[in-house]
This record gives sequence, C-alpha cells and structure tokens, in this order.
Amino acid sequence: MFRFLRVNMATKTCAFEEIPQEYAGLGGRALTSTIVAREVPPTCTPIGPHNKLVFAPGLLGATNSPNTNRLSVGCKSPLTEGIKESNAGGQPGGHLARLGILAVIVENMAEEGSWWQLEVGKDRARLIPAEVAGLNNFAAVEKLVEKHGKECSYITIGRAGEFRLTAASIACTDRELRPMRHAGRGGVGAVMGSKGLKAIIVNPEGGKSQPLADAKAFREASKRFAKALAEHPITSKGLAEYGTAVLVNILHEAGGLPTANFTVGQFDKHEAVSGEYMNKITKERGGEGVVAHGCMSGCMIRCSGILPDKKGKFQSKWPEYETLWCFGPHSGIADLDAISRYDYMCDDIGLDTIDVGVAVGVAMAGGGIPYGDAKAVLDAMNGISEGTPLGRVIGCGAATTGRVFGVRRVPVVKGQSLPAYDPRAVKGQGVTYATTPMGADHTAGYAVTSNILNSGGTVDPLKKEGQIELSRNLQVATASVDSVGLCLFTAFAILDVPDALPAVVDMLNAKFDWRLTGEDVVTLGQRVLSTEIDFNRRAGITQAADILPEFFMDEKLPPHNTTFDITHEELKTVFNWIKPFQS
Amino acid sequence: MFRFLRVNMATKTCAFEEIPQEYAGLGGRALTSTIVAREVPPTCTPIGPHNKLVFAPGLLGATNSPNTNRLSVGCKSPLTEGIKESNAGGQPGGHLARLGILAVIVENMAEEGSWWQLEVGKDRARLIPAEVAGLNNFAAVEKLVEKHGKECSYITIGRAGEFRLTAASIACTDRELRPMRHAGRGGVGAVMGSKGLKAIIVNPEGGKSQPLADAKAFREASKRFAKALAEHPITSKGLAEYGTAVLVNILHEAGGLPTANFTVGQFDKHEAVSGEYMNKITKERGGEGVVAHGCMSGCMIRCSGILPDKKGKFQSKWPEYETLWCFGPHSGIADLDAISRYDYMCDDIGLDTIDVGVAVGVAMAGGGIPYGDAKAVLDAMNGISEGTPLGRVIGCGAATTGRVFGVRRVPVVKGQSLPAYDPRAVKGQGVTYATTPMGADHTAGYAVTSNILNSGGTVDPLKKEGQIELSRNLQVATASVDSVGLCLFTAFAILDVPDALPAVVDMLNAKFDWRLTGEDVVTLGQRVLSTEIDFNRRAGITQAADILPEFFMDEKLPPHNTTFDITHEELKTVFNWIKPFQS
Repeated sequence: MFRFLRVNMATKTCAFEEIPQEYAGLGGRALTSTIVAREVPPTCTPIGPHNKLVFAPGLLGATNSPNTNRLSVGCKSPLTEGIKESNAGGQPGGHLARLGILAVIVENMAEEGSWWQLEVGKDRARLIPAEVAGLNNFAAVEKLVEKHGKECSYITIGRAGEFRLTAASIACTDRELRPMRHAGRGGVGAVMGSKGLKAIIVNPEGGKSQPLADAKAFREASKRFAKALAEHPITSKGLAEYGTAVLVNILHEAGGLPTANFTVGQFDKHEAVSGEYMNKITKERGGEGVVAHGCMSGCMIRCSGILPDKKGKFQSKWPEYETLWCFGPHSGIADLDAISRYDYMCDDIGLDTIDVGVAVGVAMAGGGIPYGDAKAVLDAMNGISEGTPLGRVIGCGAATTGRVFGVRRVPVVKGQSLPAYDPRAVKGQGVTYATTPMGADHTAGYAVTSNILNSGGTVDPLKKEGQIELSRNLQVATASVDSVGLCLFTAFAILDVPDALPAVVDMLNAKFDWRLTGEDVVTLGQRVLSTEIDFNRRAGITQAADILPEFFMDEKLPPHNTTFDITHEELKTVFNWIKPFQS
Repeated sequence: MFRFLRVNMATKTCAFEEIPQEYAGLGGRALTSTIVAREVPPTCTPIGPHNKLVFAPGLLGATNSPNTNRLSVGCKSPLTEGIKESNAGGQPGGHLARLGILAVIVENMAEEGSWWQLEVGKDRARLIPAEVAGLNNFAAVEKLVEKHGKECSYITIGRAGEFRLTAASIACTDRELRPMRHAGRGGVGAVMGSKGLKAIIVNPEGGKSQPLADAKAFREASKRFAKALAEHPITSKGLAEYGTAVLVNILHEAGGLPTANFTVGQFDKHEAVSGEYMNKITKERGGEGVVAHGCMSGCMIRCSGILPDKKGKFQSKWPEYETLWCFGPHSGIADLDAISRYDYMCDDIGLDTIDVGVAVGVAMAGGGIPYGDAKAVLDAMNGISEGTPLGRVIGCGAATTGRVFGVRRVPVVKGQSLPAYDPRAVKGQGVTYATTPMGADHTAGYAVTSNILNSGGTVDPLKKEGQIELSRNLQVATASVDSVGLCLFTAFAILDVPDALPAVVDMLNAKFDWRLTGEDVVTLGQRVLSTEIDFNRRAGITQAADILPEFFMDEKLPPHNTTFDITHEELKTVFNWIKPFQS
C-alpha cells in the first residue's frame, strides 16, 4: 500500500514505486534526508536538473494522533549549498499520508520558462500545464480551489519561487485553504521553481487513515500523548492564547531579543509587538480574528491565531515570534499591523519570513533601506513580487543582502540567517546555530527550552557550561521528532511530562509492530544527523563552517554584556559520535 | 635595509619592522600568501578587522631588469572566502621596492565611515584623513597628484571599494599617472575599503635600486633575459601591436570564445572587437592613441596601448582580451567604443572587468539586463558608482548576480567568474579554473599557451589527455613567476626560449647570492600553492570545490560539441605533492 511517487519534470512522467527495503522505517526528515543523500550529487547546482525535491509526511502521519501531520520537504539548498529539510504544517502532509504516499520525489526539470502542476489522488498522479503561473500564493490557491474543490489541499510557490530566490518558501494550505503554512527555510521554493513545478494538488478522496498493527494499543498511547499535551501549560494554553509571540516579552526580559541587527538584546517598544498585545487586539477587533487556531487536522496546540485588521477583516495569521522579531526589533519597527502585512506578503509571495526579515534589517545596517522605515520596507516587499533588483536582493535573504550592501555584521551561518535569539544571551541556541547541518536554525535544537523557559531542566543561558550537551541532545531529539511528523511544539510536553516520550514510542510500536525503546529514538536522530553531515561534507561544507560570525565573539551584547565564548574547538565536539570528517 | 611596514588602521600607527627570518627569500605572491596564511584567521569575516591586506613587490622589484615590477596584493577574499593574491603592473611596485619596503601589511580597521590615506616615503609613513573620499579613481588621483606631485605613484580604490563590493579592485597608477593597472580579482578593493583606507601615496624620493650581491653577473643575466623577450614573437611584437586583444580572433577560430553566457564557442561579430581592429582604429584615429605602451618602468612587452575616441582624445587603455570578451561576445555587444567606455568605468569606479563583465552577461541570461543592450549596460555601470541596487549587484560579480536573478548557468568556481576561454574547448584552462586556490582564474595556470598558442609545446585543447599535467606545471611555475614580480606575459619567452628561465634564476642568484637551480623554482611554486591550499582548507574550502559548474559537463559547446570530461577524481590529482587534505 505504501509507495513513493516519482515525478520526472523533463519527461512529465509520474510513477508509483515500491519502497526499497533500505528506506523501511523512515519518514519525514529521516526519509527526505536519506533520499537526498543517496540520490542527489552533493556538488550539483541546487537549482539545476540534478537536484531533487522530496516531500514526505512523518511516520505518524494520518493516524489520528495529535499534531503528527507535518510535511517534510528536502533537497540540496540553494541558500546554504548543503542538505535541507524544512517542514510545514497545514493539510497536505496528512493528505499524502492518507493516500499511502510516503514520499513524492520530484526530479529533473521542465523546459525553462514552462510551468506545471502536479495532481495527486488515490493511485493516480499526472503533470499538466499550470493553471496559475505568475500568480502569488493566495490568488493561485483561490483559483485552484475553484476548480479542484475544497476537499483537496494545495502546495504552491509564489513569485519568489518562480524567480528562484534563495529565501523562497513552499506554501501548504491550512484547514481553511489559506496558503499560510510554509516550508520556509533554505530556499526550497527556489528548487520547486527551478523544476518548473508551480503547484501540487492533493486530493485525499479515497484515502484512509494509515493501518495500525495494534489499533487498541495505538489508541491508548495516543490518548496518553494527548493527555501530556493537555497538561503542559505551554502546549495547552500558552501557545493558543498568544501564539509563539508569547516569546517577545520573555526574550526582552532575558536580554536576548536581538535589536537593531544584533547590537542590543532589548527593544524598548517590545510591548507593541508582543503576544499579549496581539491577543488583546485580536479580541478587541473581533470580526474574523481568531484566538486559538490549529493549522492542521489533529492539532491540540492551536498556536496559529488569526489577526483581524481594524475593521475586523482577516489581515494575516498571527505572525510567529521570529517574524515579529525580524521585522520588528531587528529592523526598528514597532507596528504590529505593518509587520502583519509583511507576514501576509511573505505568505503570498512565498518567502521565508526569517531570512527576508533579517535581510531587511541587514539592508538597513548597510544603508539600503532607512532604519525603522515601515513604508520603505513595504515598498521593498512589493519589489520582491515585482522582481525589482532591490526586491530580488532582499528575497535572496540576509547573506546576499549583506554582500550587496557591503555589510560587515551579517548574522548568518552557512548562508542562512540567525533567528530571534541572540547567541550571546542564549548560548545553547548559539551552539545550535553554529553546528546544525541546516545553517542557522532555531528549530534544529531549540535550546531556548532549558536556557529560557526552564523546560527540560535549566541551563544558565549566559554561561558556556552545559550548552554543548544541551544542543547535542536537542538536535538529536529534534531529528527524530521531525521524522515522526510531530509538530516541534510538542517538544515542551515531551521534555517535561514524563509519559509523553514513552507514549510517542508506544504509538510507533503499536503502528509498526516495532520494539523501539527511548534509546532507539536517540539512535534514529543520530543517524539522521550523520546522514546530513556526510552529505554536507561531500558538498564541501566542513567543520570550518560550524562557527558564528566573528562579531558575536568580538562584541558584547547589552544588557548582559556577554560575548559568545564557546570556542570553535568546543563546537567541534557537538557531534561526538561522528569521526572528524575528511575530504 | 629591507623592512615590512605595518599599518594599524584602528590605532593609526605605522611601524617599520625587521623582516622575520621565516620570511627570508620570499617576495610577491610567496610573501603575501605566507603572511596571510600565518596572520589571518582563516574563518574571519573578509571585510572585518581580522583580515589583513598585504602589498608586496616581487623578488626582482627595483632591479632594472625587464618586466619585474609587478605588485602583489594579498588577503582573504570577500569574493571567494579563500586566500587571494592579485597582482598589478604600474609604478607602485617598483617604488615600494626602491624604498626597501618588501611588504606593507594593513591590519585592523578604522572607524566605519571614516577614510584615510597612507603616505609612504623614505623611512617614513603616516596615516592622515583622506583627501579624496567619495571620488572615483581618476578624479582621486588627479587631486592627489596636484598635491603630492608627479614623482609619486598612487594606489587607490574607487567607490566600488568604498561600497565594499566583492568585485572591487585596487588601482595602481601607470607611468602617466593614470589609475589603470589593477589588482582586479577577488574583491581586494573591498578589503581596502573595509579598512577605511582610500589611498596610498608612494613617494620614491631617496629610494634606490635594490642592492645586488653580484652586480656584474646580474647585469649579464638581465641582458640574456631581455634578449629572450626580444626574440619571442609574442613578447616582442604580438602583444605590443594588438594588446592581449590579439586573442579574440584566435579564440574564435579555436571555437573557445565563450559567447552568450557560454552557450556557443564562436561570436559572429568577433572582428569588431578584435585586436587587429583596435590596432587599426588606434592608428586611424591618431591623436592621443598609442600603439605599444608599457604600463610600468622596465616593460619591454608594451601591451597596454591607448585607445583614442573618434576625435582622437584618450578614451581608455586598450581593453584586455578578457574585458573585450566579457562585455563583448559574452554579453552580445560588438561595439568596441562601448566596451572601451565600460573598461574606463571599471578603472574609474575600481572594478574587476572580468567579474563585472561576466556578471553583465549573467544578468542578461536572467532577464535583469536586455541581451546585447549596450545602453542598458552603461546605465548599470553608472549604477555601480551611484550605489543603486542593480549596480551593487553587478558590482558584486557574477556569483551574486546569478543568485539574485535566479540564473542556473553561472560560470564561476569558488565564487569567482571564469574568464574568456571556454573550458570545454580549452580543457587545460578548465583544469586551472577548477583547481586553483584562487577561484576561476586564467592567470593562475595559463594553459592557453600549449592548448592554443603552441607555446611551451602543444596539448590538444579538445582532448583530456595531458591537461592535468599541463595545468599542474603551469600553476607551479606561475606561483614562482608571481613571486619574482615578473609580468606573466614573460612566460611566453620562459616557455619557449631555452635561456629565459636560466637567466631569471641567474638574476635571483646574482642578486641574493643564492645557488638556486631550476628545480628550486619548482619547489618555491609548490610551496606557495601548498600554503594557499592549506589556508583554504582551514577556511572551509575543500577539494569538493575543485569542480566546474555542472553545465560544462552536461552541455556540448558548439562548434566542436565537446563537454568538459575531466572527472572530479582526476582533478583531485592536480596537487599531487599534497596529501589529501582533512578538516
């Protein structure tokens, strides 16, 4: 029943394949990274015919357990030139899993300038000329829904992906058919664009929940996992009430909210872009605003509220903390409605909010955009969709923007921009930024948990002690979480509620008739990371790249006046189960 | 008598230093690369305070021997992120050597936004606020000459360097005090700009020719070397009559003239941008035009003619072959006067003609500039000086331009653009592009000699046989030539006239009281390359980066319809005296 769908953009053929034995037991990130590592030549041109784009739901996709329908997207990244896995919520992950498709592998490329859409249903798939070329995501999806209906889900790129910009994302529709859940990081949208693939329409009709080896045991374990999510204050209430924006005030208080391109750790106008304020005006404005909204079927956490405009009309999803941060404190803008507008534009044009928002602040540091000028940012964002030179630069992310504007202090690792936690004040996060094979990525090993939130224990964020081990453990655990299809936010419960991880392991065992232990989950995570690091090594990315930009070591961050003092040699010990890699 | 001059831009101190023993016997590229490798942290930010900018004349600078006054400029490159040596003709190299200064080491950085000039004379040096900030090279030098006089020579950056663009060059004045001899490649001008150093004024007053251990033997060897240059048809006549532009028709005939962004190997309008045509109109227009002009004291080759405009006024130096190629066939422009204008603008704004010209053709491939539109290119070039977004993108070179415009076929290696010889039709050159630690650079191992010009033997340019060895030998020899201060064009005589290399060795021995053999010259070259490759390895550049863009392997080049078929594994054997490097 389970198959791969292999799509050749050059020949326009779609073929279902039995799953080779060596991929058994892999899902989500474990599967995308393994396929990319085996099938993609590591030195290939990321936007060329030899790269492949892989979509894979997680191991627990379509099982009716909570928060397990994420979709992993893998390829060689045109942003980092290394391996990339970026995952998204929304409906397509669950739908593909319901159709028994464990991976869609898109390879080769269509004639340059031609655009195609992939239609996937029960035991069928075909490529036809795209109906929505040139449109941004909202217009594209609206038009596709008119024709293909509301039961389908949609995976699309906007004009940023068509332009092959290296901050282009891939959008997945949420339950209300809005293209607002994005595989954002690493320019995966540029890879989709380079293949000439504008949209994927997933019709779940005739699909079904995935079979369970022991349905009763699975239901029991699933209930225990749901109970853990319901018990933990962050997963049960905090994220629903304030979204991830709950972190604005917390990071400000911690002195780790990077402000004005990482020159200060606090933003005096933090309240204006906080989750508390967003909750308040969402309620006050009413109308189409929603507090506690889930982006995918089975979500119990419901962090993705809807922000209404002053008239109560839909304005955007609640911007994530990282989005609020990069367009806000990082760029000197304290206007929630303006940031909400940029967030909508990123969703529409198909862009990673983080790399674009960081690019905006970097452009400001280089004089390309006036600091704190919300109108100038709006113009620049419009320019991305229009394909102006400035727009394209910003749409390529912070590294390219820094280069074009001659900026010395560019907060990127492996070409990908740092998110919203200053590594000098949240040092565990700095270890993750420096070392993850993904390029700077908070989600790859979210040390904010123990550094700031006292989740999974406490490690002093300002001291170097314990950060290597913290980041290592989190990176390993995350690689597993990303393979199961779990939303990363379940990690709060997994870290703090003793029965949560056993419940996940029991779900896996009950579904697949396995005998996994917690230890095996660690082994899976290590195996995924080893595969990714080996690909990077073959692509020419070595441990020399496992380092933060020097200004984090050179400049003290107010208010704590700390530097990032974990040495390069110490950082090289994170992946201590891998022999030093050679080339 | 011989000293280093160390200039600290932060403290504004200039200090003469005795030369440490470990640097004895090194000059030019050998010296810049050794200093950079020892003193610059390989993972540092190239435009940050930890990078250093080193200027060094060659071992035979200021000896009155022919063509030995080149100046090497070394640093970590902001373009390639690896080590860089770029050398220039003109007068400053000889002047520094006359002052007994074997290296100027510029370190740290001034307050951002402040601009300084370094004044160097006999036993003195100082930094004062720059008199010419904001000016491009011609206006800057004109103003400096008014104050400091015609006996000095000048090293400056234009606005591209001030903007820290990664294709920014460093200009050296020629004998007529025009800033037309550039250390062009790798963004060395951005490094000078990042330090806040706008200009260096070198006053040779009180300096003298370098001492010779055996003056008589030196003079005899020097005469033999001069005789060799006078004998060889290319060094005695070809380059003087037609400049390097003599190659346009030759490469067209060979089918290796990359046209329309490396899609074809011939350009139907090649005659209009040929050396023969340039010679003809220079003579016809008369006026300030010059055929056979030497750029530095002691030049016997005299390749740097002066092109007059239609009224006989100075228009530009004769554009080099590579300049004619990238703005011409590569970009579809067959207008010599237009290209001459771009060449002048590159000299004025301070830009590498190759990376900018290749960027123009890449922007055309990506729709950013209309193909073949000379006026649009002029606007884009003006935009570099004005700092427009498009101008800055082009001014960052082909790699950044390719990324911004989403171009798949970007002809770069290690971020630096390929010059004017298609690697599918001049395969030895392809080996050099792929493997030199400098990023794609024809001068690093100029296989055109044996592939096309039958100089130094003949190796079939279309076949893979012999190319690895050819490139290896040339790269080793070039590393030595670049260390001696010799103009690379002397290599034609060195390759073909049996007494030329012995004469150079005898000059070195007579000057330094050494007992070098030809074999030692090979050892020096290998040592330089080993030092550079080791720096790159520590900077994170591995053999995975020793590869051409995949389209050279995938696409056949008309008219010969050959691909680049030398494998990555074969390329890894070029530096066969170095153990596979590890990280």
